[in-house]
Amino acid sequence: MKVIFLGTSGSMPSQARSSSAVAVRSKGEIILFDCGEGVQRQMVAAGVGFSRPTRIFISHLHGDHILGLPGLIQTMTLLQRERDLYIYGPRGLMGFIEAFNSILGDPGFDLVVGEIASEGIVFSGQEYEVRAISADHDGPSWSFMLEERPHPGRFHADRALALGVPQGPLWKRLQQGEDIELGGRKVLSIDVVDPPIRGLKIAYSGDTRPTEKFSRASDGADLMIHEATFDDSLIEKAEEDGHSTATQAAETARAAGAGMLILTHISSRYPDAGVLLEEAQKVFPKVKVAEDLMELELP
Amino acid sequence: MKVIFLGTSGSMPSQARSSSAVAVRSKGEIILFDCGEGVQRQMVAAGVGFSRPTRIFISHLHGDHILGLPGLIQTMTLLQRERDLYIYGPRGLMGFIEAFNSILGDPGFDLVVGEIASEGIVFSGQEYEVRAISADHDGPSWSFMLEERPHPGRFHADRALALGVPQGPLWKRLQQGEDIELGGRKVLSIDVVDPPIRGLKIAYSGDTRPTEKFSRASDGADLMIHEATFDDSLIEKAEEDGHSTATQAAETARAAGAGMLILTHISSRYPDAGVLLEEAQKVFPKVKVAEDLMELELP
Repeated sequence: MKVIFLGTSGSMPSQARSSSAVAVRSKGEIILFDCGEGVQRQMVAAGVGFSRPTRIFISHLHGDHILGLPGLIQTMTLLQRERDLYIYGPRGLMGFIEAFNSILGDPGFDLVVGEIASEGIVFSGQEYEVRAISADHDGPSWSFMLEERPHPGRFHADRALALGVPQGPLWKRLQQGEDIELGGRKVLSIDVVDPPIRGLKIAYSGDTRPTEKFSRASDGADLMIHEATFDDSLIEKAEEDGHSTATQAAETARAAGAGMLILTHISSRYPDAGVLLEEAQKVFPKVKVAEDLMELELP
Repeated sequence: MKVIFLGTSGSMPSQARSSSAVAVRSKGEIILFDCGEGVQRQMVAAGVGFSRPTRIFISHLHGDHILGLPGLIQTMTLLQRERDLYIYGPRGLMGFIEAFNSILGDPGFDLVVGEIASEGIVFSGQEYEVRAISADHDGPSWSFMLEERPHPGRFHADRALALGVPQGPLWKRLQQGEDIELGGRKVLSIDVVDPPIRGLKIAYSGDTRPTEKFSRASDGADLMIHEATFDDSLIEKAEEDGHSTATQAAETARAAGAGMLILTHISSRYPDAGVLLEEAQKVFPKVKVAEDLMELELP
């Protein structure tokens, strides 16, 4: 999986930071978290295509998280996208999409829109699933957990041969976890295949005050992407506006035992986000501040 | 007057070109022609402020000309703009603005929206006026003529003194074009003040096939900003899609006797717009292709 930070600004974009959007590329598929103004141009800059299977997860209906949707959909139409586009987000999302479609015209492909009414699995696919967790912001707001399905463990051809299983379709059945019969003997999958490797887990906070719920749901996440709109001196403003400070984001990552923390949704008052990094590092050393077009390869 | 090309792309933005928007700075006031996605970020990059008196003229309601409006208005609200914002454009503009306001919330200042129903003066102010001319595109579409009011001619203090007019309030009255009486004698303004200097004229095509109407209305424009979506090999596509080729834009500028021509709305198929420049130069040598954030000082 590759994670690309398309836009990392707070509520106002700056010269260096476009509005909120994160792309995850997984096996030729694109997963987008939020879709701030300018996302289509950032996708061009990052080389993220417009025709792949794509699922968009919108955390909440504030302008800086959704105003890139209409232009993205228009460009996909101009490029003659044929594949359905899946968009999930809070109640009201459908109304927003209908409102701009009524002005700009219907897209040339099907939009499949899912409004999230309660916490739980939003999408469950063969390769990954996405769960929504209530965020603590302004109006209906969601955080998301992206969890890859476990990968099959390593197949040991030498052991299979030693047990008398010839190369061919039987190997495949064993690889897929099936036990087989061979000349009256049983060969167990676990004797020739390592245990499944757990898939990657990415936790995306959206805009939120720090919550225990998000921290618990993020348990063991390989990557936590947490908003850190403000530095600690503005903790009261963060509380008031429904945001987090850098230290609060770091505390959340520590509590979750995350593998890595990336801070994003950086207020335009920090042309240099060094202060946020320093504060977070004191609590959780494996932290970076997102920059636009920063890429992260998850092994 | 300073003209700043904020976005110069065709219907799809590219890595180098943001969606359509041109800013004119005139005596502390901002005039915007079109407001494509990303305009607020381009305004930050160009140092165009969000709090000045601002009038926005929208040529037509296609996404690449209007999708920057919601984010611009949201950012002005976040920055606590108090001044009214004036927006003029085709019928349907109000519906578009109401649609996104209903999702994003009302702005913190007054929007004064004028839907243009027919050709003629759209705005008439002390410093300049803007006229709308029908464009030939897709649905209701407008081109705009921005004309500065004439500036008072040079005042000749030496002549005023020679005619016995002492420095003071009488000079001001003469400067403002008033004839005065002095000791039973008449002193005429034209004897001490040069004729008024005509103001600048900027012609903005919006998206359009070439039209004689626009060319006639642009008569003597100091600057013509004309779309040139395609090169001449795509003249049939231009006709079909309601656009112009570089040569057609140049012919329009030549017919109008324009002082200078800037080509914009450049299709993303031209990472190098040299072909457009070459074609236009053959017809009208005083031509440039707009680049994002290019600035032009008009004397």
